[in-house]
Amino acid sequence: MANYPDALNSVFHALSDPTRRAVVQRLGRGPASVSELAEPFDIGLPTFMKHVGVLEDAGLIRTSKTGRIRTCTLDQKKLSPAERWFDEQRSVWASRYGNLDKLLDQLNGKNDES
Amino acid sequence: MANYPDALNSVFHALSDPTRRAVVQRLGRGPASVSELAEPFDIGLPTFMKHVGVLEDAGLIRTSKTGRIRTCTLDQKKLSPAERWFDEQRSVWASRYGNLDKLLDQLNGKNDES
Repeated sequence: MANYPDALNSVFHALSDPTRRAVVQRLGRGPASVSELAEPFDIGLPTFMKHVGVLEDAGLIRTSKTGRIRTCTLDQKKLSPAERWFDEQRSVWASRYGNLDKLLDQLNGKNDES
Repeated sequence: MANYPDALNSVFHALSDPTRRAVVQRLGRGPASVSELAEPFDIGLPTFMKHVGVLEDAGLIRTSKTGRIRTCTLDQKKLSPAERWFDEQRSVWASRYGNLDKLLDQLNGKNDES
């Protein structure tokens, strides 16, 4: 089912948590180290690393290690399929309302003839 | 934290499953009964009803029962906060690239003076 790729499952799952959304938002301003990213959150590092892992599995972030510093980088284009999903819904609604408009026109046409 | 409401958690969680996304997409064309909605899926009714419950808890659909027929209706506006979240990310990236542009202008200015 081309419309429902696994990628969408993992991206929407990744975004269903406020800590992970905040990390994505922070990384939108540029790469950051794990300790920098974890700093605003009142959670232990192992829990934070699980969030980092979920974002990495979804492909939303890449991480690289230099010495003892692990740096995270956002891969913005991996958000695109999720954005496109919302656009697709809008076109479904638009075609629905288009059909309702056509029906109204037909009903009006009938009324004019009577 | 106004930017990370619970509503976003439950909406993104609801959208992290292909069956639930397909139900949202189908309901975009108009209300439908549970049995009509369940028909394309090779899963049992109890499992399907769990998906309906997740969508209902997220506020994405409303259900009403007349006789033995339960009808589901999409509440499209409940998708808006999730769409807005993506728009917010775009503005974070835009301001980042705006800042990089300013920096480049400053560097070019310095080069001109030297």
